[in-house]
Parts: sequence; C-alpha cells; structure tokens
Amino acid sequence: MFNFSAGPAALPLEVLEQASAELTDWAGSGMSVMEVSHRGKAFTALAEQTEARLRALLAIPAAYRVLFLQGGATGQFAAVPLNLAAHGAAADYLNTGVWSAKAIEEARRLGIEVNIAADEAASKYTTAPAQSALRLTAGAAYVHYTPNETIGGVEFPYVPDTAGVPLVADMSSTLLSRPIEVSRFGLIYAGAQKNIGPSGLCLVIVHEGLLARARKDVPAILDYTRMAAHGSMLNTPPTFAWYIAGLVFQWIEARGGLAAMAALNRAKAELLYGTIDGSGLYRNPVERACRSWMNVPFRLERPELEPLFLSEAAAAGLMHLEGHRSVGGLRASLYNAVPLAAVEALAAFMREFERRHG
Amino acid sequence: MFNFSAGPAALPLEVLEQASAELTDWAGSGMSVMEVSHRGKAFTALAEQTEARLRALLAIPAAYRVLFLQGGATGQFAAVPLNLAAHGAAADYLNTGVWSAKAIEEARRLGIEVNIAADEAASKYTTAPAQSALRLTAGAAYVHYTPNETIGGVEFPYVPDTAGVPLVADMSSTLLSRPIEVSRFGLIYAGAQKNIGPSGLCLVIVHEGLLARARKDVPAILDYTRMAAHGSMLNTPPTFAWYIAGLVFQWIEARGGLAAMAALNRAKAELLYGTIDGSGLYRNPVERACRSWMNVPFRLERPELEPLFLSEAAAAGLMHLEGHRSVGGLRASLYNAVPLAAVEALAAFMREFERRHG
Repeated sequence: MFNFSAGPAALPLEVLEQASAELTDWAGSGMSVMEVSHRGKAFTALAEQTEARLRALLAIPAAYRVLFLQGGATGQFAAVPLNLAAHGAAADYLNTGVWSAKAIEEARRLGIEVNIAADEAASKYTTAPAQSALRLTAGAAYVHYTPNETIGGVEFPYVPDTAGVPLVADMSSTLLSRPIEVSRFGLIYAGAQKNIGPSGLCLVIVHEGLLARARKDVPAILDYTRMAAHGSMLNTPPTFAWYIAGLVFQWIEARGGLAAMAALNRAKAELLYGTIDGSGLYRNPVERACRSWMNVPFRLERPELEPLFLSEAAAAGLMHLEGHRSVGGLRASLYNAVPLAAVEALAAFMREFERRHG
Repeated sequence: MFNFSAGPAALPLEVLEQASAELTDWAGSGMSVMEVSHRGKAFTALAEQTEARLRALLAIPAAYRVLFLQGGATGQFAAVPLNLAAHGAAADYLNTGVWSAKAIEEARRLGIEVNIAADEAASKYTTAPAQSALRLTAGAAYVHYTPNETIGGVEFPYVPDTAGVPLVADMSSTLLSRPIEVSRFGLIYAGAQKNIGPSGLCLVIVHEGLLARARKDVPAILDYTRMAAHGSMLNTPPTFAWYIAGLVFQWIEARGGLAAMAALNRAKAELLYGTIDGSGLYRNPVERACRSWMNVPFRLERPELEPLFLSEAAAAGLMHLEGHRSVGGLRASLYNAVPLAAVEALAAFMREFERRHG
C-alpha cells in the first residue's frame, strides 16, 4: 500500500510505529503524551528538543524565532498581514496558482493594499515568473509568494531577490524536502500535514526584526510577538502534533538530513516525470524548469480513462492519486515519507496501464 | 497511576488503547487516520458520525451548528466578538476569574465596548454572582460568561437568564461532564483538552441565527459562517484530534451518556470536598454552592508542607496535583476520564498524609 495523498499525507511508518508503541505510556510517564501538561517538565523538554532539531536540520540562524502554531497556512494568510503591515499598507504578492490566490484574497479582506507583482494567469498557472518579470514595489511591507503550488504542481526554481523587502514564503508543501537558505527569507510558514507531521500544527520561522510590528487588534492566537514571548504557549498548543513533528525530525536526521531528503525527492520526481514524458498516454502541463518535486499533476490523453486508472491503481495499492477536486485529473504527491519504491511501483503501473489502454 | 492534570488532561484508557492499536492501519485502510485526506470518503464519514454522536449526547437542537475548529478557547476569545458584534458594539461579560478576564482582555483589544455585568473581585473570585446581581445591558450584542473557572474552581450553579440577549459560554472545562440545555445558549465553545480529546481541537456550538453577523475583516479561520458553510473544512482540520474526540464520544455513550457522567462526576467531587471539609489540614476557599465538580483547588493549613504533599503524592502514583502556576497550592481536576478509584486513592492518601503531618 502506497499513499500519494496531497495532505494530510503519508507519515514515516517508523514514526507511526513508535507513536503507537508509546501511545498509552510516553517516556516512562505511565501516561500518553496527549495527557500531560504542556507546561510540565517532560513536555517542555520535548518542545525544546523539537525546536533544536528543526534548527539543526534547516540551519536556522539565531536571529530567527520558531513558532509552533495552530490554524494551518490559512491562519497564516491572515497572520502575515496582521503582523507585518499596518491597515492600508501595501504588500506585494506573486500570484502563481490556487494557494497564492487564497493568500491574496485574505490579505485584501484584512485591509491590505495588495500589489500583484506577478500573475501567471496568461500561462494558465503552468510556470513561475522569472526574477526579471517581477514588478516589485519599493517600500512594500513584504513580498509574499508560494514556492510550490500543490494543486498546479508549479515550483519556483529560484528564491526571489526582493532588494531588502522582507520575503514571506508559504512553504507548506516543501519545507524539509531539501536544504534552504533561511537567511533569504523574512518569514517562512508551513502547515505540517505534508512533510512535517499531522494536520493541526503550523510552523512559522520569523526573523526577530519583524516582530513587534503587529496591529493592536491582531487576535492573540495569530500574534507572532506574543507567541514568541511565550514559547508558542500563549495558549495550550497542539501537543500531540508537536510530538509527532519531533519524531519526524528525528527520522529525517537519522536518514542523513535534508541533503539526503533532496537527493531522494529529486530521484522520485525524475522517475515520475520521466515516465510521463516517455509515454504517449500521460502528460504534465508544467514548464520543465518549474515542475514541482512534491506534487505531480497529470492527465491522460484520453481523460475518460482516468476513473479506470484510479480504480485500477487503488486495486494495486496505489492510493489517493486523484487530482484536487477543483481541477480533476490525477496527481501524485511525493513528500519525504513516500519511498522511492512507491514511485517505482507507480511508474510500473503507469507503463502497464498504458500498454493495456494506451 | 492516576492523572489529575487540569489539561491537557487524562483520556479514557480504552480510547488510547484503540488509537494505539489502529495507529498504523485505520479502518482497514492500510494507513493511519493521520495520513488520509480530510475530504476523502472515509474521513468525511468519520466527521459526520462524530458530529452525530455529539448531537445525540448533548441533545443539540437542529437550529444549532457544530464546528470543529483550531486555536482553543483563546481563539474563541477573539472569534466571539469578531463574529457576533460590530466594531465598537457593546457586550456584557461576567468576570469570575482568570479565564473570564482573558476573554474580556481580548474583546477589548478587538474594539468591543465591554460592560462588566458582574465582577467577583470583592470575593477574591471564590463565588459566582447571583442572577439578581447581574447588571445586564439592554441591547448588548451578547453576554459572555465562564460557567466553570478551572483555576479558581468556581462554578455557576445556574444558567444566567439574559432576557433574550444571546448567551455565550466558555465551557472548556465542563462540556460533556453533565447534561445541559443547549437551547439556553446562543453559543457554546470548549477547548477539547479536558473532557473531549487532545489539545488542538475546539468545539463551537452556535445557533444558526447568530451566523452571518461577522465583521468583514474576520480572519477566515475564525469565521463561523464560512466554517459552517464548509463543514469545518474551510481549511485542513486537525484530523487526528477530531478522530480521538469521536472515540471519546463513543466511550461516553457506552457508559450511559451524560447523565451517567454527571452521577460519576458528582460522586467524585463530593468525595473530595468531603475529605477536605472533614479534615483539619486541607481547605478549599470556594462558596459551597459554587464549588466546581471539575477542578478542586485546595491548600494546606501549613503551606510549607505542599511540596512534600506533591512529592509523596507522585510517589504514590497521584500525578499532576500542583495548582496553576499563577496561584500555587494544590489542585485536583476530576474530568470524565478520571475514575472514581482515582479520587478514592487521593482521599485515602490525603487522610494518611494528614495523620502523619497534620
């Protein structure tokens, strides 16, 4: 059984097995990790170790704070403007697909003047804009972009240069899939349910120079400055999701860290795109330089065969290959916990399906 | 080992054992419940069953919507004014302790004119105001109160009559501990980590007549109307916490529902308060009619013995009896999952401790 879900997505089996084994008795406490106070010594130590592991994996500089929050990326669509810009201030947004558009809609609803510094509508969102095409605004409060669009399967092959304006990135679907240079960003956020852990946890990595800019009326649970001052425990955090994230970080460490994840993820993506490009039945519409390593949408040249493809794939143990409900078609998500063997099995199935139906 | 934590609190062992057994293979899917899409058939069915179970347990009328949200009660401190009142509108708040005060502070920060309709400061927050003492405002957007203060251990022995103004209740520490008459309330909210499930989930039960009143600039994750329209899945919900809550609802059903929980909780509280009142060493400062069934704070007449009490209790397997860090002392939380045997063991320990040190 292989799980290609776009999220909540596959978790490492070793992590699930450890969580299962200690679910009623965590760390010799006689209790579940779900049953202990977030302010007790045991959980506080877990929280500190988990942050230290994340800092080591990503080589996060000391000037950045790490927050473990709730509300997912959708919460951050609001938190970013509420914390980084005054009401009526201007911010630049790069529109490259469904998730960028949601971030833009929320910023506008919260009273931000949104400058669309790039819009890939003309390409039907099948590519990312070049650096030279970005129409950035001098004095913008920040530049927001989506390095990877999980629905469109489009990925920026570079980190935009914003000439000193803080760069904000929704890395929900790529954080921990490869090394990044954190110092290029003012703020990074990521819903956990792709490469990090279960849904219900959202990581924020924010340069401390961006704190203390929040509007007075930002809701406390979205206030970076207060959350940073309270170690993400202004209120009760999602302790179980935090714990699972820590196990995932250990799992990544034990497998060689983010360089190893990058090599694995590149190999998986190359195998799947190679299978698509080498076939007469499958196609992926994204410009090659901007193809996502994480989310591979594809269609069949005969779309009427797609339901059959899905049912035969499921019968072969290849699960959750349906495209996003807003676009249809097919999609394979290849996050860290999806092994190369899963993509090998998918590629073999695709070739066999094409032989029979192509 | 008995766990008296105020939250995250004890969960039923049977629930944890089932979760552990199916953590890597849920409902025959070959996957963890954490790994499946919240929009897939399996999780959608779980979500519907879970809501139906909650509706049956609480006899929730059809005119109420049930939301499964993130952000805890602290998120609701913001969501309530943002959804139910225009900027600058007036709302009544009853101030009976730490949690009421936090709700008041957040409402003020968000631009609400807060009328303090009752303030128990003069009693040092050791009682609840009588109905006749409430100074309610005609035309208030809503009346907010905290039926049970988890830190002070004070509980309202009645549901306030608000003469038609919507009554909003933070039931974080009492929801599911006994039957309630939902129709008395405009809105009920509860962080899950007491009687419902793991932290990271927050239930909202709201009369549909209160929807569509939100300010235009309410963040999407706090917007009741949009969340209700999307079945709490405007964004990815905390699926694992939702699943555990469903198992807890089943566990309550199997034990006779909320009437049985009420009988059990009353018996536990009477045993503990009886032990305190019958001793010369322990005391609880709360007016008897307003003593909480859920959270029993107590002090020793010789406070210097409290650290010894805690260490000897822990050695005897009676865990997390420390008072809230803001007030010190001792506290036993007696939520649904704390068995009568736990309170019997605590009472026996207290008598023995008094015999040796009293």
